[in-house]
Amino acid sequence: MNPTEIAANINELHKGTFAERLGLVLIEASRDAVIAKVTLGPEHCQPMGIVHGGVYASVVESLASVGASIDAMSKGKHVVGLDNHTSFVRAFRGGTLDARATPITRGSRTQLWEVTLVNADGAVIATGRVRLLALDPEAEVSGEKLSLRGG
Amino acid sequence: MNPTEIAANINELHKGTFAERLGLVLIEASRDAVIAKVTLGPEHCQPMGIVHGGVYASVVESLASVGASIDAMSKGKHVVGLDNHTSFVRAFRGGTLDARATPITRGSRTQLWEVTLVNADGAVIATGRVRLLALDPEAEVSGEKLSLRGG
Amino acid sequence: MNPTEIAANINELHKGTFAERLGLVLIEASRDAVIAKVTLGPEHCQPMGIVHGGVYASVVESLASVGASIDAMSKGKHVVGLDNHTSFVRAFRGGTLDARATPITRGSRTQLWEVTLVNADGAVIATGRVRLLALDPEAEVSGEKLSLRGG
Amino acid sequence: MNPTEIAANINELHKGTFAERLGLVLIEASRDAVIAKVTLGPEHCQPMGIVHGGVYASVVESLASVGASIDAMSKGKHVVGLDNHTSFVRAFRGGTLDARATPITRGSRTQLWEVTLVNADGAVIATGRVRLLALDPEAEVSGEKLSLRGG
Repeated sequence: MNPTEIAANINELHKGTFAERLGLVLIEASRDAVIAKVTLGPEHCQPMGIVHGGVYASVVESLASVGASIDAMSKGKHVVGLDNHTSFVRAFRGGTLDARATPITRGSRTQLWEVTLVNADGAVIATGRVRLLALDPEAEVSGEKLSLRGG
Repeated sequence: MNPTEIAANINELHKGTFAERLGLVLIEASRDAVIAKVTLGPEHCQPMGIVHGGVYASVVESLASVGASIDAMSKGKHVVGLDNHTSFVRAFRGGTLDARATPITRGSRTQLWEVTLVNADGAVIATGRVRLLALDPEAEVSGEKLSLRGG
Repeated sequence: MNPTEIAANINELHKGTFAERLGLVLIEASRDAVIAKVTLGPEHCQPMGIVHGGVYASVVESLASVGASIDAMSKGKHVVGLDNHTSFVRAFRGGTLDARATPITRGSRTQLWEVTLVNADGAVIATGRVRLLALDPEAEVSGEKLSLRGG
Repeated sequence: MNPTEIAANINELHKGTFAERLGLVLIEASRDAVIAKVTLGPEHCQPMGIVHGGVYASVVESLASVGASIDAMSKGKHVVGLDNHTSFVRAFRGGTLDARATPITRGSRTQLWEVTLVNADGAVIATGRVRLLALDPEAEVSGEKLSLRGG
């Protein structure tokens, strides 16, 4: 599968999950980059009418997780997020943003990904980094092995 | 108003905003602490069936913002978030969590709040810190003065 | 050994290392808490005469690493730091600070520790969190197994 | 002054301060980028013989502060660091690293800078981000106005 097909498959997996609530649509996904559009409305804002910082942190988390998972799966592993540090750069009142995730390191033990959201003018709205831990498939998380729902 | 009444008012303000999507209900809110319940279902999970890390970062952001705003309003100021750093401690597959925000510093220029989410056994699920900037009411953010929608 | 004796041993190990340059003296060290004094002079400041933020991040890193290492050694493991997030709360112009590290989680795969530095009045000067990764003793880091120098 | 001359001046200011202890020598400094060499020996390591994570966080803090200060001074302001988040990517056992700071945002209220340290092969050793607050010259920090020592 090419990055566009992988993105389409993950968009299917995201249906009914939190990623869908974020207005997130993946365009391309590979172990080298994850590219997405995020369409934000009043339901993503805080009461002042600017987009809630948690939305940006969530998009950062989603894209980093997708990229790191694709890399990890090629090595027979899963990943779980450890830490998310997101910085808010410009306030945004709604519309569509472009988001891109790229790896800083894709080690066998942990990965570090960086994600940046920009507006239509290319100005940075928010940017964050996520550290993720690689897990063996038999590792238990919260008392169960990790697997896709229904998988 | 006492902290329970303030919480109820903010729950009203949150209707239709991202905070409501998080399953977040404030119980008490003051400049000293913000206490909430967060009820999480499949719509808050990622495809593996564990709660999406962005949900925790978002709850951290919301509670810190509420606490810092209450403090800032008493000084005639607004706040906006600058940085959110959230750490994921235990995976959680859905249900209700308790969340509490407390201030580390409430300076006139910036504030730093800490927020922790625990399960029914009191075990930490996630914890984060948010730095917020105090703004004068006449300050413009994203080209407009900040005010409550319709306010 | 009790926590005071462990602290004394680690102070010996720190001789000639970066921890000594920080003016750091451990008072008590166990897997539950690490307590230290930090004595800071002009050599720890930036050109404006206030203590350099890196000093606080370094003390946070040292204390978290000591606590996590003690826990990990009891399980036959090493730890290495992954991420350090330190917040600066009040400027400080030199003298002695008290620092204390406590664990947020001590998992078998990663640990998260919190460290806070306070002045003689108990006011927070800086506070940070460090995520650390547990490694098996045979794991190689930077092309070599980890061991104490000369060990 | 050009960036090389500014760097030389700041290296002078750094004498006797913490930056000098870090083995830090600035090569170029402007509001657009700060470039430095960092020469690290046993005095920058932890007892396992790998460079102490605090050294990286400190270099990140120094370079971000220099870049942000140059920008702020051109607007008649000072800056102080608020938060430093540094990620450790590869262990390093000593020698010389190249470090570079670039701005993510240089707002009138806060700035966000990113700093990355790479080895001779260009591999990332550590990378971090620092949020800084702009202050008016008359603002007091720790009970005094900020100024260069002796200035």
